[in-house]
Amino acid sequence: MTARFKRGLYVGRFQPFHRGHSEVVKGLLKKVDELVVVIGSSQKSHELENPFTSGERIEMIRASLDEIGVSPSKHYLIPVPDSQDHSLWVPQVVSSSPFFDVVYSNEPFTRRLFKEAHFTVESIPFFKREIYSATEVRKRMMADEDWRALLPKSVSEIIDRIGGVERLRELEMTDSPLKRVLRNKRK
Amino acid sequence: MTARFKRGLYVGRFQPFHRGHSEVVKGLLKKVDELVVVIGSSQKSHELENPFTSGERIEMIRASLDEIGVSPSKHYLIPVPDSQDHSLWVPQVVSSSPFFDVVYSNEPFTRRLFKEAHFTVESIPFFKREIYSATEVRKRMMADEDWRALLPKSVSEIIDRIGGVERLRELEMTDSPLKRVLRNKRK
Amino acid sequence: MTARFKRGLYVGRFQPFHRGHSEVVKGLLKKVDELVVVIGSSQKSHELENPFTSGERIEMIRASLDEIGVSPSKHYLIPVPDSQDHSLWVPQVVSSSPFFDVVYSNEPFTRRLFKEAHFTVESIPFFKREIYSATEVRKRMMADEDWRALLPKSVSEIIDRIGGVERLRELEMTDSPLKRVLRNKRK
Amino acid sequence: MTARFKRGLYVGRFQPFHRGHSEVVKGLLKKVDELVVVIGSSQKSHELENPFTSGERIEMIRASLDEIGVSPSKHYLIPVPDSQDHSLWVPQVVSSSPFFDVVYSNEPFTRRLFKEAHFTVESIPFFKREIYSATEVRKRMMADEDWRALLPKSVSEIIDRIGGVERLRELEMTDSPLKRVLRNKRK
Amino acid sequence: MTARFKRGLYVGRFQPFHRGHSEVVKGLLKKVDELVVVIGSSQKSHELENPFTSGERIEMIRASLDEIGVSPSKHYLIPVPDSQDHSLWVPQVVSSSPFFDVVYSNEPFTRRLFKEAHFTVESIPFFKREIYSATEVRKRMMADEDWRALLPKSVSEIIDRIGGVERLRELEMTDSPLKRVLRNKRK
Amino acid sequence: MTARFKRGLYVGRFQPFHRGHSEVVKGLLKKVDELVVVIGSSQKSHELENPFTSGERIEMIRASLDEIGVSPSKHYLIPVPDSQDHSLWVPQVVSSSPFFDVVYSNEPFTRRLFKEAHFTVESIPFFKREIYSATEVRKRMMADEDWRALLPKSVSEIIDRIGGVERLRELEMTDSPLKRVLRNKRK
Repeated sequence: MTARFKRGLYVGRFQPFHRGHSEVVKGLLKKVDELVVVIGSSQKSHELENPFTSGERIEMIRASLDEIGVSPSKHYLIPVPDSQDHSLWVPQVVSSSPFFDVVYSNEPFTRRLFKEAHFTVESIPFFKREIYSATEVRKRMMADEDWRALLPKSVSEIIDRIGGVERLRELEMTDSPLKRVLRNKRK
Repeated sequence: MTARFKRGLYVGRFQPFHRGHSEVVKGLLKKVDELVVVIGSSQKSHELENPFTSGERIEMIRASLDEIGVSPSKHYLIPVPDSQDHSLWVPQVVSSSPFFDVVYSNEPFTRRLFKEAHFTVESIPFFKREIYSATEVRKRMMADEDWRALLPKSVSEIIDRIGGVERLRELEMTDSPLKRVLRNKRK
Repeated sequence: MTARFKRGLYVGRFQPFHRGHSEVVKGLLKKVDELVVVIGSSQKSHELENPFTSGERIEMIRASLDEIGVSPSKHYLIPVPDSQDHSLWVPQVVSSSPFFDVVYSNEPFTRRLFKEAHFTVESIPFFKREIYSATEVRKRMMADEDWRALLPKSVSEIIDRIGGVERLRELEMTDSPLKRVLRNKRK
Repeated sequence: MTARFKRGLYVGRFQPFHRGHSEVVKGLLKKVDELVVVIGSSQKSHELENPFTSGERIEMIRASLDEIGVSPSKHYLIPVPDSQDHSLWVPQVVSSSPFFDVVYSNEPFTRRLFKEAHFTVESIPFFKREIYSATEVRKRMMADEDWRALLPKSVSEIIDRIGGVERLRELEMTDSPLKRVLRNKRK
Repeated sequence: MTARFKRGLYVGRFQPFHRGHSEVVKGLLKKVDELVVVIGSSQKSHELENPFTSGERIEMIRASLDEIGVSPSKHYLIPVPDSQDHSLWVPQVVSSSPFFDVVYSNEPFTRRLFKEAHFTVESIPFFKREIYSATEVRKRMMADEDWRALLPKSVSEIIDRIGGVERLRELEMTDSPLKRVLRNKRK
Repeated sequence: MTARFKRGLYVGRFQPFHRGHSEVVKGLLKKVDELVVVIGSSQKSHELENPFTSGERIEMIRASLDEIGVSPSKHYLIPVPDSQDHSLWVPQVVSSSPFFDVVYSNEPFTRRLFKEAHFTVESIPFFKREIYSATEVRKRMMADEDWRALLPKSVSEIIDRIGGVERLRELEMTDSPLKRVLRNKRK
């Protein structure tokens, strides 16, 4: 690994991976040689805020990046589950990932944890965040609005194949206490 | 096991098991030969929404069904804890239960998970759901209203023996943040 | 619960449940009114020493006891997983079981843990232990010897239905380090 | 251990340990010979309601008590993580602590769990609870108000050294769903 | 996904990934369009039989396959930790991986678990297994013999960079009971 | 904390804490101002190689050090459970302990993990290791030989009070497969 080689880390839950995410990856690959994409909360699925399994998300991300011409030789897709003990989350990312030089994140909590572990942390210039957000995608799926416009074509196809919209709507009907709290907040 | 033999699965938290639940079991046993009753969130107890241990719930269910003449030879009581990873919950039920042919549930989340695992899922004709609900039972216990009317006599006796009403009221005085959120919602 | 009512606890792994076990249950039910049968190491399956899931074991035990005329109204079948922290195992049994008065066990470790928790612990008069042992059953299955002679007929039938012998033999071919250690010891 | 020797248990999360806590310890040491101070939710850190690691909290408590002349020979500091299964939390405290005779707590949930396990539970005369509360300390830290007034000098120094105020403020900017719920409640 | 598209699954621990493994991947990619390579026991590292973290192993595999001209667009690298409950391991692989049609494995235990879950399982024609084995690589590392001959050049380079040989030798000096058992067996 | 202040870390399982351990603590306190004593494998107890709970071990260590005049103001006793993922064990120690400058250990595995995390690691001049070893203490307890000679008087008293010898002997009678392996090795 020469001095000029640089590998970055980019963390998200990608529920689902949308056009904003794929633009971020494209943009970061102008700054680094390779990008480690960490699929956070990898153990979660079948929840209103986390409908897709890590396997489904990995398939979506690979296909999306392929669609915009980002070669898989430029990125690693690494699932990392939540850690009960927040102070162990960064060590878990480090142990699960190839070596990396810099962390890209706008999330204050993620930034804080990596900074306390003495990593270089840089901000991400978000691509039209007011339009492209996973929360907005899920909202449109539940409201039967145009969610496809926010997603790479290949992600829409995978969601169709696995019945993702039906899954999300059935989850919404569920009445566990916490889910009700979160649903009410959205209104 | 002849072709005609049929075993059903019925999932609940049973906090506590009430007259509505016992009527459902009686009704389902007209459709199947044996019923596997899964005691969900089995690891939870001593919470406002989950006051009773799985051992206490098993004792309640057995006694209730005995009270209405449902033989223990017709049902299995299987405790299953929550799974951190929702996509592993159905496999956990399968591994913990005798073989079953059909799942009875009205809960959209439970139905969804079993349907994605290719199980036959059927709805339950609830017995007076507006009256018989575990949430209502717990609410009456805390408000010192007539909770006994909703329960089989043997469940009331077990709750008296273990000091269940006192337990629930003391839990209600606790001021952890999430408990406060849930309590406020109830009002 | 009158003063004369007495409930006992009997712990085993039941891999599988054999004629010795069923005789023990029959014998203990002469001393107590009801018996809680704890299915230990419930999370284990598909291992050389633990081939069967807790669901399969529950089905075997129920059918065996039925076969010798022990009514399911006299026993509870309670699965309990191992505890990483041995000092939490007895509390976990207590939380998972209906109330019990006395513990029956010949296993020094189990006896010790219950005695430290101030339970009454009594010994079990084993039924022909030199013949009826689960280790012997599994050995015969692997060596293609007469394992059926040691089992209630209904257990044999369940093992046939789930392909238990084939499962055990394939597990034996596995070469993980610990399994090799244990296999060598058997010789 | 003579008959007169008495060891008490005092449970808190100590996020952070403040002057009210140190007064409680001083007061309880007039009633018992030694005090076991349990640092609850020990696995939590880097959360709005739980900013500090158990190591940081242990350092704070030791220094605080030293500051007011309470010798470390009079107390034990024992970290105990939350238990997924509430009915296992008291056994976990027992297994992690030196033997103790009496539990001091005003928290109804804690009191209830210890009472069900047949411990003697006594109340704590709180020291100016309307002023000294960890929630108030964290609120002042986030609002840039005088949080130092509520803390022993040595705790302030540790918080300065580890950048505790900055940590808390960055955590507050985080927008995970549950954190938003809790933050809104505070207003 | 057209009818002709086919995705295979190949499971290993890859401690480390050697020339035999890379030949297997090359061979399997003649039978399927894409290969999911599951990095088993992903949580393990710094053990005599499992010296490398999943992040290190992922970096090794990617570089090795690149070295022999296998494009990353043809494979997915999916870390999967061990499951305490063996009956949950296949569901965990399924949830962590993109959809797959066929499983390639020679390990009887892995084959058994996938067959019980109704997957198509096929054997792998191993490439000179008597020479290329991860156990042999680790043995040579500890004995200061020519381990490099068994590894792709890029794996040797990564092992040099992370001090892999020194790590393994220091682990060997450790005297925990189980490690001693395994070490003795090797002799 | 002035530049001259120095805090060391010393890791052991202390099953039980013996005269060799107490001499090491005394010796290390000549090199550092304060010592963090990590009680490793804190979750283990009631095992042949790990008979005592972390609470019991903490009580033993405190009393032993008191006995030889080492003030509790010079040391911290920090229980740390094993980590399923070895690469997370050092981060867990860091999160559970007050800040420390140097690690003292002779155990190659512990040394390796701390060195990979960029800690200063120094060796411990052991005090008559051929005589003072916890394995030897447990061996003597089981063989009814003079185990008291190896322990501080206060540790013997605690072991007597909790029935430690009886516990160990009953554990030895247990016939779980792994325990048999370990027992045979001892001979």
